[in-house]
Amino acid sequence: MFFPQKVDFQKGDGLVPAILQDARTGQVLMLGYMNQEAYEKTCAEGVAWFYSRSKERLWMKGETSGHTQKVIAIDLDCDQDTILLSVEPQGPTCHLGNQSCFRDDYFNLAVLERTITKKIAYPEEGSYTKYLMEQGLDKILKKCGEEMTEVVIAAKNRDANELLDESSDLFYHYLVLLQEQGLQLKDVEARLAERHGVKHTYSVRNDIQQW
Amino acid sequence: MFFPQKVDFQKGDGLVPAILQDARTGQVLMLGYMNQEAYEKTCAEGVAWFYSRSKERLWMKGETSGHTQKVIAIDLDCDQDTILLSVEPQGPTCHLGNQSCFRDDYFNLAVLERTITKKIAYPEEGSYTKYLMEQGLDKILKKCGEEMTEVVIAAKNRDANELLDESSDLFYHYLVLLQEQGLQLKDVEARLAERHGVKHTYSVRNDIQQW
Repeated sequence: MFFPQKVDFQKGDGLVPAILQDARTGQVLMLGYMNQEAYEKTCAEGVAWFYSRSKERLWMKGETSGHTQKVIAIDLDCDQDTILLSVEPQGPTCHLGNQSCFRDDYFNLAVLERTITKKIAYPEEGSYTKYLMEQGLDKILKKCGEEMTEVVIAAKNRDANELLDESSDLFYHYLVLLQEQGLQLKDVEARLAERHGVKHTYSVRNDIQQW
Repeated sequence: MFFPQKVDFQKGDGLVPAILQDARTGQVLMLGYMNQEAYEKTCAEGVAWFYSRSKERLWMKGETSGHTQKVIAIDLDCDQDTILLSVEPQGPTCHLGNQSCFRDDYFNLAVLERTITKKIAYPEEGSYTKYLMEQGLDKILKKCGEEMTEVVIAAKNRDANELLDESSDLFYHYLVLLQEQGLQLKDVEARLAERHGVKHTYSVRNDIQQW
């Protein structure tokens, strides 16, 4: 349940574009259009509703596929004529079966973390992640220490290729550690934001009631 | 210079929405509209051009402020009626002076990395980053090792709060190390993508000529 803000539906003849962005990875997933009713249903139900220009009717994303978009945050732009939804997609967003309607080779640490989350939730025979989790905390920490030492040696040698390899190993094992401890990368980023993030004042935007 | 793809300008009466996303951090910066001419100028010049619905004319983002948007990649969605531009913003994107036209407290590791990049490029008295860079590689590596050891102890103690604190310290020093070595987080992510990324085939989208 989100508090509906004042959206400017005038410029687009009753429709505004709504961007869906994956709340965990930052990947832009799709763009749809909302009229007032779709926007209010999205706010009320916490899942993305759109207005189809071709079918001329409201539709809930995932109404046939089951791949709904759980809304984490709703933000308007400075002109209040574009909506940005941070979402947790329940399955692929694109009707072609891809994660995104745009290019689908998006990758970052959060994508790797999501893969690790799945590998822990649904362990498969032969999975290294499964092996690590079965071995337990000591094994994971030994690997973290080992990979950090290898990062140090690569950096001392100024060997960029080796540093990237060892950093990759370090991040993978560190992300497994976070999972083992019941934490996520976004928790670390939230702590970092407290220390290093911009202390923002929204005084310039006091027409917007909710952040 | 980008090869213009076939964009469907019909549904929006000659206009399609174009999302600007920061190529480094993943932050969604703004949404504008392009007609055929704005799209072709964007492809040809490698900076974002739009069509203003209110002023009814083409405009280059940053034409008065100087805050242009350097285009890194251009992608269309599966319907070919929405454009996603990955950009390097030259200054704040929003006319209110904020980085984004949406909420401006966006933060992740890439945002911290950009801050560190700036602190190294423009060192200020009293800056810890300046101090670390002056002390040099050995000092940075000692701190990385120290913070990793503290991560290990926090994890052994199953102290989530301490683990987040020590992880924050670890990431900060690790990002300084990467900078010292002339590398970026995206380089590590590219290496990780080679190992863990989805091997994607675009055969389902053979109408799209360029990726």
